[in-house]
Amino acid sequence: MPENQSIRVSVDAVVFGYTSREGLSVLLIKRNIPPFRHAWALPGGLVHNEESLEEAVTRELQEETGVSIRYLEQLYTFGQPDRDPRNRVVSVAYFGLVRPDAFRLQAATDASEAAWFPMKSLPALAFDHATIVATALERLRGKLTYAPVGFELLDKTFPFSELEKLYQTVLDRPIDRRNFKKKILKLGLLEKTSEKQRHEGSGRPGDLYRFHAERYQALQHQGFTFEI
Amino acid sequence: MPENQSIRVSVDAVVFGYTSREGLSVLLIKRNIPPFRHAWALPGGLVHNEESLEEAVTRELQEETGVSIRYLEQLYTFGQPDRDPRNRVVSVAYFGLVRPDAFRLQAATDASEAAWFPMKSLPALAFDHATIVATALERLRGKLTYAPVGFELLDKTFPFSELEKLYQTVLDRPIDRRNFKKKILKLGLLEKTSEKQRHEGSGRPGDLYRFHAERYQALQHQGFTFEI
Repeated sequence: MPENQSIRVSVDAVVFGYTSREGLSVLLIKRNIPPFRHAWALPGGLVHNEESLEEAVTRELQEETGVSIRYLEQLYTFGQPDRDPRNRVVSVAYFGLVRPDAFRLQAATDASEAAWFPMKSLPALAFDHATIVATALERLRGKLTYAPVGFELLDKTFPFSELEKLYQTVLDRPIDRRNFKKKILKLGLLEKTSEKQRHEGSGRPGDLYRFHAERYQALQHQGFTFEI
Repeated sequence: MPENQSIRVSVDAVVFGYTSREGLSVLLIKRNIPPFRHAWALPGGLVHNEESLEEAVTRELQEETGVSIRYLEQLYTFGQPDRDPRNRVVSVAYFGLVRPDAFRLQAATDASEAAWFPMKSLPALAFDHATIVATALERLRGKLTYAPVGFELLDKTFPFSELEKLYQTVLDRPIDRRNFKKKILKLGLLEKTSEKQRHEGSGRPGDLYRFHAERYQALQHQGFTFEI
């Protein structure tokens, strides 16, 4: 057993934001310490000796961006020997999906700024963080096909088209709308409300739905198969 | 940035074995160093400074069991502060599925023995290794529903029932045989051969299949949805 292991452990957070107006975005910080000083990067940092990995990522995210998220899901561990120019750092990455407008950004500690960047126009990122973001996006897209993802990001009641838009935006491709609706409704994830959507112009007012939180949690736990 | 981080990084390997006769098993080693000396554990150990995580897990597995596996998939990183009684060790776990009869076991370094244990009668395991095995089994089962898994473990040509058996064994539950066959054939993963299975008794000889390696690799890459 090598007693002289000199590897450090860090955590990084890929926090995706979604709104129907702005689409998909990623929360980044501007580094105020070397290396990659003044470059944009994922929020994250070294794990403290006494905290769990989940506590570390929650703390780093809060410190550097002001964003408090209880639940981030472990994504993947990035451990290439040369990924940090200072010394060997193995980073355990986490990801989550939130509504950006639920948070007020506040940069501090190792970050001079914190900001949401549209997924389609990310700046150059420090370290291997572009790879981490790409891995997280792939995982998020994969997840859409076997778990209900992101329903909680929609308004309390919403037209079905808003859910379609969420899925199309994350997947970045059109979906088979008729099939999609049939499948979602079959899963029992949505309840039709008695409210109707008011249109600006003429046309028949559309149905509004609300999502069924208990059923959602049950399905998130047990999983399902879901071809989009 | 805490300069005094005292966390070490290890890797652990969950290697599942499958044969139609013996079912699902797990490769374990008997530790010959403390802590948990003489207890059974997953093969694994500390990462060397210059090697990648994948190189580390391949090396540890080879050293402790004699088993050489090029490709293990990253499972999850286990980082609870108290998971190792000596000091803080964050372990990146990997998993794979192989034919046990393809390997000759040879324990060495930190292991005094290496052996396959039936999944259903595992001994008490060191550290949090029981949790790691349970997580790997859950991942393997989940994977069956969205990726072709384990076809390469079957004989070169096989009756369809052997593939059913593999799936039933890993899932540990009966599957809808008719539906399963329909879906598998639709995916184009199997080719019917001109060979027939010879039965001991009477009865019509059954068809033998071979799996379509190229199609398999394509599907493993692109994924699919697959309700069993």
